Amino acid sequence: MKGIEQPSRINEEAIRKLRSGKHKPMSVEDFVLGIREGNRTILSKAITLIESSLHTHKEKAQEIIAQCLNSIRHPAGSIRIGITGVPGVGKSTFIEAIGKYLTANGHKLAVLAIDPSSSRSKGSILGDKTRMEELANDPNAYIRPSPAAGSLGGVARKTMESIILCEAAGFDVIFVETVGVGQSETAVHSMVDFFLLLMLSGAGDELQGIKRGIIEMADAIFINKADGDNIGKAEMARREYSNAIHLFPASTNGWTPEVGTCSSQTREGIIRVWEVIQAFTKITRENGAFARRRMEQDRQVLFDTIEEALKSQFFARKDIVHQLKILETEVVEGRISPYLAANMLLGKFNSGNVK
Amino acid sequence: MKGIEQPSRINEEAIRKLRSGKHKPMSVEDFVLGIREGNRTILSKAITLIESSLHTHKEKAQEIIAQCLNSIRHPAGSIRIGITGVPGVGKSTFIEAIGKYLTANGHKLAVLAIDPSSSRSKGSILGDKTRMEELANDPNAYIRPSPAAGSLGGVARKTMESIILCEAAGFDVIFVETVGVGQSETAVHSMVDFFLLLMLSGAGDELQGIKRGIIEMADAIFINKADGDNIGKAEMARREYSNAIHLFPASTNGWTPEVGTCSSQTREGIIRVWEVIQAFTKITRENGAFARRRMEQDRQVLFDTIEEALKSQFFARKDIVHQLKILETEVVEGRISPYLAANMLLGKFNSGNVK
Repeated sequence: MKGIEQPSRINEEAIRKLRSGKHKPMSVEDFVLGIREGNRTILSKAITLIESSLHTHKEKAQEIIAQCLNSIRHPAGSIRIGITGVPGVGKSTFIEAIGKYLTANGHKLAVLAIDPSSSRSKGSILGDKTRMEELANDPNAYIRPSPAAGSLGGVARKTMESIILCEAAGFDVIFVETVGVGQSETAVHSMVDFFLLLMLSGAGDELQGIKRGIIEMADAIFINKADGDNIGKAEMARREYSNAIHLFPASTNGWTPEVGTCSSQTREGIIRVWEVIQAFTKITRENGAFARRRMEQDRQVLFDTIEEALKSQFFARKDIVHQLKILETEVVEGRISPYLAANMLLGKFNSGNVK
Repeated sequence: MKGIEQPSRINEEAIRKLRSGKHKPMSVEDFVLGIREGNRTILSKAITLIESSLHTHKEKAQEIIAQCLNSIRHPAGSIRIGITGVPGVGKSTFIEAIGKYLTANGHKLAVLAIDPSSSRSKGSILGDKTRMEELANDPNAYIRPSPAAGSLGGVARKTMESIILCEAAGFDVIFVETVGVGQSETAVHSMVDFFLLLMLSGAGDELQGIKRGIIEMADAIFINKADGDNIGKAEMARREYSNAIHLFPASTNGWTPEVGTCSSQTREGIIRVWEVIQAFTKITRENGAFARRRMEQDRQVLFDTIEEALKSQFFARKDIVHQLKILETEVVEGRISPYLAANMLLGKFNSGNVK
């Protein structure tokens, strides 16, 4: 853990304040300075503010984010990579393998997780870190476990804001890890530049757990655990997916999804994954799709956040929720049109708001 | 056109009133009676009310729908089939071919279209009917062109309400046709029991026009125009899609998508399409997935309609839209977090509503 919590020498004063706990809390400026210096203790503390449910923490977090955004603008140098796959596909060992390669080649890597549906306790989060033991002790890597369970929208927001802080702290490669069984892949897809799907050979049974639509989201599919007796099966799976993926409609970003095999154990194919990501980055940066996607993502977040808040206000009204339950039954049993039911509820909502 | 507008003898009084135009307008009861008797003139008139932008028409339409729902409950006998494919795939001739087969075998078929993005004029709608000339003159078929251009949400609502009226009028097979190039497929998918994708052989170029994700929605893919010199290519395409589709995650309804070939010209494979639909219906009715999907669709419409209305209210505020434009630019240029921008707008919206 030493690598992760290692304080920066430049900001010892701030750290001292932070540690002693007796002095007044760190100011927004302290945070921004610490983050921009790459101090991971302060980065962690700032992400904790993002995750906090306290109003004062949230406000402070927003100010920190605003200043970090102003200081980095659009960090042309960073690449945000979503990594997904069912439990057992070997995400942790894969991340450890490619992560060590990246840090050895001068990159600074942040690993975030988004997994709101999971019931991971603090204990098993530590378990996660232990599984990435080498990376956890790497001074050029920063591993942040997934925020405490919450709504998908909330967790997505926290992850996206954490990405901003990590980039301000100088991390140029961001991994966002998710388990490919829920709705979180769509959320991850909406915040990364590149979406990597890890699969196992012996397609069929393994697929049952993966949600429909994920395959079409992937910018690359890699068949993991392509080692030992598994090599032949993995190569067959690769060919099958490669054929299948060319039947999909082409993406508008000029990139054709790549299918490959890799092994975190033998490290075979791991460098290839990074080469594919670099090829993707080169093509989409040159044709403008990279920047366009980030802008579109930000715009989408703006509208999604508004939408979510409007819905929350509606469903916070107890009288509405009460009538909704009754009408929902009527609708589902086919006694009333869903459009009429919606209009009745909206009428009630608006008249209640006027009062 | 005679077949379509043929009045029912039972309801001559209502027709007379309708035609003369001098008498008071038809009552809700007149409409419901006429629809339940299968009178197509009255059915058309009712659908026109659904499509009207006049408030009094809308209200009347809602009452008619409510009474039709009460009279049919969940019509266990009907099947709603979405049919999509790029322009040129031969949807009209396919519908004509399978439609004639269905009406010859005792079914009553209604064909609706959902295509909000199209700029079809009334003229080319007639062109559509002409292309389905035999079906248009079939007393057991009812063809209703797509409603005038509008928002996708609006067109989806109108189509779904039209389905209810068609079922009340005794149509047991409903086709909802769409062009597989826009967002309307998702809308159609949300209102049908079975989703049929028509494709052409020579996969690749033809696919460019189809939106990502549509293939995974399909309950069946049929390669159309499998005739003459095309047969070999079509069979090859069938095999490719068949292999590809098995790599997809299994659906939860117990149905494995079917891939086949057909020709509207030679009628080869057309009956097979209907057999596939019947097999699907049998399996999903027995395992409960059929009823579950309809209930889920109704519930979804309820929540979607509420959401759309809440958004409309928000974006109807001119001061909000003005500030939104400014903040959107700030967000897209990376100067402000999209979350913060959303909160600023929501604050303005709520303070404005209190006044």
